Amino acid sequence: MSINIGLIGAGRMGKVYAQTLAFSVSEVRILALADLDLTTAREQADKYAIPYHYTDYRQLLARDDIQAVVIATPTATATHAQVIMDAAAAGKHIFSEKPLSQSLSECDHALAAVKAAGVKLQMGFMRRFDPPYRMAKQKIDEGVIGTPVMFKATGRDPRRTSLEFARRENSGGMILDMGVHEFDLARWLMVSEVIRVQTEGDCLVYPELRGVGDIDNVVINLRFANGAIGNIDMSRNAVYGYDIRTEVLGSEGSLLIGKLQQTATLVMTRQGVTHDTVPYFMERFGEAYGAQVRQFVHCITQGSEPSPTGLDARQATAIGIAATRSLDENRPVLVNEV
Amino acid sequence: MSINIGLIGAGRMGKVYAQTLAFSVSEVRILALADLDLTTAREQADKYAIPYHYTDYRQLLARDDIQAVVIATPTATATHAQVIMDAAAAGKHIFSEKPLSQSLSECDHALAAVKAAGVKLQMGFMRRFDPPYRMAKQKIDEGVIGTPVMFKATGRDPRRTSLEFARRENSGGMILDMGVHEFDLARWLMVSEVIRVQTEGDCLVYPELRGVGDIDNVVINLRFANGAIGNIDMSRNAVYGYDIRTEVLGSEGSLLIGKLQQTATLVMTRQGVTHDTVPYFMERFGEAYGAQVRQFVHCITQGSEPSPTGLDARQATAIGIAATRSLDENRPVLVNEV
Amino acid sequence: MSINIGLIGAGRMGKVYAQTLAFSVSEVRILALADLDLTTAREQADKYAIPYHYTDYRQLLARDDIQAVVIATPTATATHAQVIMDAAAAGKHIFSEKPLSQSLSECDHALAAVKAAGVKLQMGFMRRFDPPYRMAKQKIDEGVIGTPVMFKATGRDPRRTSLEFARRENSGGMILDMGVHEFDLARWLMVSEVIRVQTEGDCLVYPELRGVGDIDNVVINLRFANGAIGNIDMSRNAVYGYDIRTEVLGSEGSLLIGKLQQTATLVMTRQGVTHDTVPYFMERFGEAYGAQVRQFVHCITQGSEPSPTGLDARQATAIGIAATRSLDENRPVLVNEV
Amino acid sequence: MSINIGLIGAGRMGKVYAQTLAFSVSEVRILALADLDLTTAREQADKYAIPYHYTDYRQLLARDDIQAVVIATPTATATHAQVIMDAAAAGKHIFSEKPLSQSLSECDHALAAVKAAGVKLQMGFMRRFDPPYRMAKQKIDEGVIGTPVMFKATGRDPRRTSLEFARRENSGGMILDMGVHEFDLARWLMVSEVIRVQTEGDCLVYPELRGVGDIDNVVINLRFANGAIGNIDMSRNAVYGYDIRTEVLGSEGSLLIGKLQQTATLVMTRQGVTHDTVPYFMERFGEAYGAQVRQFVHCITQGSEPSPTGLDARQATAIGIAATRSLDENRPVLVNEV
Repeated sequence: MSINIGLIGAGRMGKVYAQTLAFSVSEVRILALADLDLTTAREQADKYAIPYHYTDYRQLLARDDIQAVVIATPTATATHAQVIMDAAAAGKHIFSEKPLSQSLSECDHALAAVKAAGVKLQMGFMRRFDPPYRMAKQKIDEGVIGTPVMFKATGRDPRRTSLEFARRENSGGMILDMGVHEFDLARWLMVSEVIRVQTEGDCLVYPELRGVGDIDNVVINLRFANGAIGNIDMSRNAVYGYDIRTEVLGSEGSLLIGKLQQTATLVMTRQGVTHDTVPYFMERFGEAYGAQVRQFVHCITQGSEPSPTGLDARQATAIGIAATRSLDENRPVLVNEV
Repeated sequence: MSINIGLIGAGRMGKVYAQTLAFSVSEVRILALADLDLTTAREQADKYAIPYHYTDYRQLLARDDIQAVVIATPTATATHAQVIMDAAAAGKHIFSEKPLSQSLSECDHALAAVKAAGVKLQMGFMRRFDPPYRMAKQKIDEGVIGTPVMFKATGRDPRRTSLEFARRENSGGMILDMGVHEFDLARWLMVSEVIRVQTEGDCLVYPELRGVGDIDNVVINLRFANGAIGNIDMSRNAVYGYDIRTEVLGSEGSLLIGKLQQTATLVMTRQGVTHDTVPYFMERFGEAYGAQVRQFVHCITQGSEPSPTGLDARQATAIGIAATRSLDENRPVLVNEV
Repeated sequence: MSINIGLIGAGRMGKVYAQTLAFSVSEVRILALADLDLTTAREQADKYAIPYHYTDYRQLLARDDIQAVVIATPTATATHAQVIMDAAAAGKHIFSEKPLSQSLSECDHALAAVKAAGVKLQMGFMRRFDPPYRMAKQKIDEGVIGTPVMFKATGRDPRRTSLEFARRENSGGMILDMGVHEFDLARWLMVSEVIRVQTEGDCLVYPELRGVGDIDNVVINLRFANGAIGNIDMSRNAVYGYDIRTEVLGSEGSLLIGKLQQTATLVMTRQGVTHDTVPYFMERFGEAYGAQVRQFVHCITQGSEPSPTGLDARQATAIGIAATRSLDENRPVLVNEV
Repeated sequence: MSINIGLIGAGRMGKVYAQTLAFSVSEVRILALADLDLTTAREQADKYAIPYHYTDYRQLLARDDIQAVVIATPTATATHAQVIMDAAAAGKHIFSEKPLSQSLSECDHALAAVKAAGVKLQMGFMRRFDPPYRMAKQKIDEGVIGTPVMFKATGRDPRRTSLEFARRENSGGMILDMGVHEFDLARWLMVSEVIRVQTEGDCLVYPELRGVGDIDNVVINLRFANGAIGNIDMSRNAVYGYDIRTEVLGSEGSLLIGKLQQTATLVMTRQGVTHDTVPYFMERFGEAYGAQVRQFVHCITQGSEPSPTGLDARQATAIGIAATRSLDENRPVLVNEV
């Protein structure tokens, strides 16, 4: 069984998905592509031999020969929830880049629409498909580290985002934008909901971020429903490289996920031993982008339920909203307050 | 110039200092030793050819031929501050194991006594003398990582302490007992005072600790006077080994201090690649114990001022008290509240 | 410009190239495929939507609409040289898996045919396209380690090959079969010809290999034309994983290429710290297979000269023959003897 | 039982042993010290409170109150064998720095003298007492890697030795001087004698060494009596640090011994991740020097037999002589030829 896919969005992430769908997912055909910018839409359609392209995604959704859509519209335009609702109404199965929405009510509306339409929805938390994280999850499930009691995560970007994107009305701000992956991992690896957060953070390296209301460094304490605890640190100034490390400490051991080295070459000189670092997210998670879409296609062809779900995305957003409020109000915030 | 030293306390840490003074500090002679237990005092005196031993440390302090004392009485008996005051009154230079006291007023009394007597006081934060930490401090001072903006620390013991020691009236509880080293590193490496703390923690692995009012896992957010932030995680259940890691992230780079491997042998079999871990603190910081006492002796013979100071110890205690209160009251606590 | 490719051979390596060409090389179309086994040919043609398939590769070569061929026939049938000659005669550009031939005179005939036909020939030494090796080559070229004086290589397979393949008349024996990659790296990284070899080796772990005239462990000393020295160790019993490590020591430093870890997850338990290993060559060099074919296509479309060349392959074979003779005759052997 | 020790030689290694005996071996007293240079002898005697010092070691040997001697005279004066014979004749137990002698007949005379006198002799192959090597030996003994089939060793100094020392009549040349530790490890870890060697080597970095007949880079193939094989590479130009790595590959796994990093601090900047290296042998094997002497003293007090023995030293020398001859004559050399 072959699936006809419509790709919505051909910007930074849209291009990632165009290439991923074209080259690493068998049994899939990108039948149509939509992007607000006609030139972009035409270029990508040409590049990957996609038969149809549109500037209005609703035209794409109107095609009966498309079974599923991949949504990769920009986070800053906050369109994921709206496009999901429209796609659900059109009866298409949906793969959507994160986040679902930075508004919990929008999240809930989108999830209701998906449920009502009876279509499948998988959210793009690609780290769950990264082999190091998959191995960690498996070891936890096997009981290798006993009962998980502490979650630790470091999530650092090598440079700041654009000032425009940094605004809360666009990206949700640093905690929501960067943190959503960490919050998803926390829930997934600890198999428990985050119920309380405590945030310390500030604008310490890029003063221009202060002007748009954002910060560049943050630490967030976590409390889980099962009693476990955790901490996430994030930074926009890991100038040495893209630094993603996660740790789960259990009663019988610990798991350390992540790597600092990209290329397996050590340079040894009078200055010491040196190796390079991971440049950015595609170098680190490129394979995982393919793996998650392969699973989505598999769920459609096999009739099974995809994961991470829309609810997973909603909960990650809720934690991010609570952590942002904790920063603003300088107090512990319960996730179910928001 | 040779120094005659009196060693006060011959228990776990006292034995460490007896060996350290006997074997790794030149120009020093242990002239006398005091321990409440006569058998212990006699055994250690015999082992290291120490001429005099006492059960009452005041007899040791009464000797005019002793210029300096090393205080290694048990933390649980909370005697450091009292012995420091007595030693200062006797005109002896003082090296004391941490902590100074778990009471800030006791800390202040002891520091006043030291000041009034005009003697030198060095506190036993041995990590400052550990080569990896020394290298990190030097790199920070040289500006290699730019402006430090985030402090991260992991401090984990391979097993729980005794239930008796865990009581707050004895050790101060986990946060004060284990955290005092982390709090000292935070102030030293960031060159700024910690002004606010937020704690999440619980008793998650050893339920018997709950009975004596202690916890076994904790995360503590930090806010520094210069705006920087940080987080410390600690655990009593790092069953895989003694796990001490510290990180300082700056505007131009980061420093990672610590190691997981004790013995430089990799075992490669069908089960993968395996190495051992660091068993406990002496295997990790054994050398640093010698280095700090060598500096103390050097400061006496050269007339220079030792460091870390009594004030350093007082401030580390203050952070610990604040972090414990944050745990108890579930709110951010300012260090100058306590 | 798009290139029509004919793929010759659809066995183990042929399947690798079918997938590589289909998924990771733009501007290429596999127009036809040939394999002696009709079922295999048909299956692969179906799987990758290849329009034509044959059991006789000469039919494929007869097509005018094919500009280039990828030769991935089995090493054991020693057909590479013959197919290269036929493809050259048909005017096709040629990418061929290693080895060229285990006979130097066959090598020379094939190279003469390529030269006479004026077609391009690139040999499949994929390691030259592996990022760690590329970085090493670049550092050497930049002078980072000064003058290279010693080449070290470890090449170990996780298990033995089949007894049939191990026979010298099939694979050339262990030294030629496994060593050809190491010999190519030696020449490429040291920028000098190997002129003398000394071999110690034996059948030490799999006695059944002795019956077919092969060995399972070997060390080979190297002498280069520029005076530099080297050593290669190879084994068929690296049961812990596929272990490929290379080192170049220079007058001003050294480069260590290779990795033992596949998945970036550390498991820390009472048994120590453990990570996995690299399973086999596709997990280690999978990306490089694509990169080398992309370069081949680029050379055709741009009219530039591909590398590694047929002469590179011939020289690697010559070193292997000399090292095998050194093993047989227990003496240093000059490469220009063979 | 306390042992009175006489220390013979107070040069570079003599100072190492003076400090080792003074600070890390209990139940031992350095009663006397001998060095040809009176000033050196007096200085060291003062520094470690050694009661007696001499310029003629025979005066030291004449003292009845000395039970054992530690011989640390310079390698270049080739006096170890002679002093051992004299010490044996005086009835002293003997610990001697390596090498025994660069002459096999001298080795044999010294061993005969020791045997005739019935005294104990332990040779200073300190690596056998280094924790990483001890762990490796234990894993081999436990069968963790099955049957050892390949020995690999890298032994590299960060700079060349003095030209005077490099002469064969002084140090024996690079192969004997640096290699003796590797040859000893080979025999010890593989539990088999080396029976054949093949050497490639040259003077490639320090042309001035050629003038005194020495080389600076070498690779040596090994063949063991039990069929196993091996290779040792050595260099005088590891300008990045002291680089000692050893590997034992077995039928069921492999052991990698050694480390490149001295201080457990990673520096992460835009230039990548960097750590330091091991400066030289005392930083790497300092502890092992103490451990070997403690075992020697233990063997005296307990009446047990010390190891490594004089025969171990003789065999390591024999391998070195054979490997040097292989270099000179460009052919495989049997160890029992020499």
